[in-house]
Amino acid sequence: MKKFLNAPEAFVDEMLEGIMAAHPDQMSYVNDDIRCVVRKDLSKKKVALASGGGSGHLPTFMGYVGEGMLDGCPVGGVFQSPSSDQMYEVTKAIDRGAGVLYIYGNYSGDIINFDMAAELADFDDIRVETVVAADDVASAPKSETEKRRGVAGIFYLFKIAGAAAEAGMDMDEVKRVAEKVNGRVATMGVALSPCIIPDVGKPSFTIGEDEMEIGMGIHGEPGIRRGKLRSADEVVNEILPKLIDDLSPESGSEVSILVNGLGATPKEELYIIYRRIAQVLKERGLKPVKIYCGEFATSMEMAGFSISMICLDDELKKFLAAPACTPFFEQGELEL
Amino acid sequence: MKKFLNAPEAFVDEMLEGIMAAHPDQMSYVNDDIRCVVRKDLSKKKVALASGGGSGHLPTFMGYVGEGMLDGCPVGGVFQSPSSDQMYEVTKAIDRGAGVLYIYGNYSGDIINFDMAAELADFDDIRVETVVAADDVASAPKSETEKRRGVAGIFYLFKIAGAAAEAGMDMDEVKRVAEKVNGRVATMGVALSPCIIPDVGKPSFTIGEDEMEIGMGIHGEPGIRRGKLRSADEVVNEILPKLIDDLSPESGSEVSILVNGLGATPKEELYIIYRRIAQVLKERGLKPVKIYCGEFATSMEMAGFSISMICLDDELKKFLAAPACTPFFEQGELEL
Repeated sequence: MKKFLNAPEAFVDEMLEGIMAAHPDQMSYVNDDIRCVVRKDLSKKKVALASGGGSGHLPTFMGYVGEGMLDGCPVGGVFQSPSSDQMYEVTKAIDRGAGVLYIYGNYSGDIINFDMAAELADFDDIRVETVVAADDVASAPKSETEKRRGVAGIFYLFKIAGAAAEAGMDMDEVKRVAEKVNGRVATMGVALSPCIIPDVGKPSFTIGEDEMEIGMGIHGEPGIRRGKLRSADEVVNEILPKLIDDLSPESGSEVSILVNGLGATPKEELYIIYRRIAQVLKERGLKPVKIYCGEFATSMEMAGFSISMICLDDELKKFLAAPACTPFFEQGELEL
Repeated sequence: MKKFLNAPEAFVDEMLEGIMAAHPDQMSYVNDDIRCVVRKDLSKKKVALASGGGSGHLPTFMGYVGEGMLDGCPVGGVFQSPSSDQMYEVTKAIDRGAGVLYIYGNYSGDIINFDMAAELADFDDIRVETVVAADDVASAPKSETEKRRGVAGIFYLFKIAGAAAEAGMDMDEVKRVAEKVNGRVATMGVALSPCIIPDVGKPSFTIGEDEMEIGMGIHGEPGIRRGKLRSADEVVNEILPKLIDDLSPESGSEVSILVNGLGATPKEELYIIYRRIAQVLKERGLKPVKIYCGEFATSMEMAGFSISMICLDDELKKFLAAPACTPFFEQGELEL
């Protein structure tokens, strides 16, 4: 296992100690539990946003705790849900009287624990609402979106709902915006290599030297097809139309694209991929207004990438363009 | 060769087509040559900064073309110098009468070509000055810094000299600041795996499954020691004191640290590494005021990392804290 770590069982807590040491002005934690991550500055009265989930996906989830995005994030073990108690402690810490919106990926462990935390918060008269990200079109058909996994497209939920909350919208409005995003984002990925969970010490799956897996999840969940590695253009030609068909945008629609590296894929390759995406968008009459290209939701050292597309309207575009500042993501006000 | 690409020989140009398609508001090119990259907005009268070098290191070099950093950057093939003609074309395009400062890494091909471009520019009465980055302490002793390779520490040159130019300093002053940075930055890296140059199609070197190479360069140049992979803490204990000894900062000095992933090393591991760095800095009485942790100078999909340290003074701190905005790096004004 070629990893820079000390004891495998200390992987998550030592990572968090490093993050807290590096960014003390932006991040903190509550309840004497370093896995209960919150924004350093919680003074502004606004709807609070929390996410949470397993470790191993940086910057997802906790990397988006900061100005214009999330207020808190309980952190689980690698690919494991944080506990309901950790979620509850974060919820109490970040609520400023306007309620807490949970935004997390569609995984059963997270759902059980977040639901339990919401019940505990209810006893404290903290209003909690939930929006579950389910953007992976490879994981279930459009008729069963409730079965879809949440993957890199959750970034748009954090960014846009975060900006809505920062702008002073109330809970009903922030939730409405988040649900609108949820209905307009689709993602699909492709993997070339597995990752290694430190505690396990061996690859999460095996794949041939000349193979790729289309539609694979960010924990190594099986995709929809395994086959020979094809050219960058051919891979985009296979994936992107599936996103466009799923979202069915009208010709002329404005979109934002996220080309997300899963961990070991160089930025050079992500831009070769975006080159073909731009061509296909043009062919389909779609107008890209903002491109994100880099690592936004990883699977540690997995090689591969995903494409997320969101269909914008004026409201979503305004919130996408708003500034954000976390230790892992920074964006000034954009002119879109 | 598990890479997302089309024809290997089109790797660099297709990457650039993707970058230009993704960031048309921020980047452009001159002389009908997509490898002659310049800032979209060259209207501000100021000293211009150019870098340049081989591809395969994104965000280095061209990723730092943008507000508060570079004005232009000729782009070579993978690990190959751009031509002197490309450097000259970029130089002419970005000069706004206040001269052009070249900042690039200490590699013979780049030196020959940049020097030739400077001579060509001289015929046009464009003042060109040069500062060569040579921060890799593993590549030569302190008594022979002119032999040292330039690696990730060049980021601090771009950031700080870029801010000095943006602030309106004249050429003599910007060069003075850049040279001050150069004397105060040191870097050392460690690699776990090679990368593959697309045109070559096979790994740049071989290394055992349980081995690491300390002091390796970002093109796979041999380091100072190959040995068994050790714990994250032990690797930091070996590297960081070499940087501190090289720079000999007084106790109480303020420093900035860059923990740079070489391509395939997860951010989780970089923060486990920073955890130990923070402990050692404290033991040595050094005060970290700004931490960068991520991929700043890569070797495509190489696994490994480097640590860069810069000793700040009030002037350097002010310019480090200034805002910057490029497609690959964004930072709002910092309070340091």
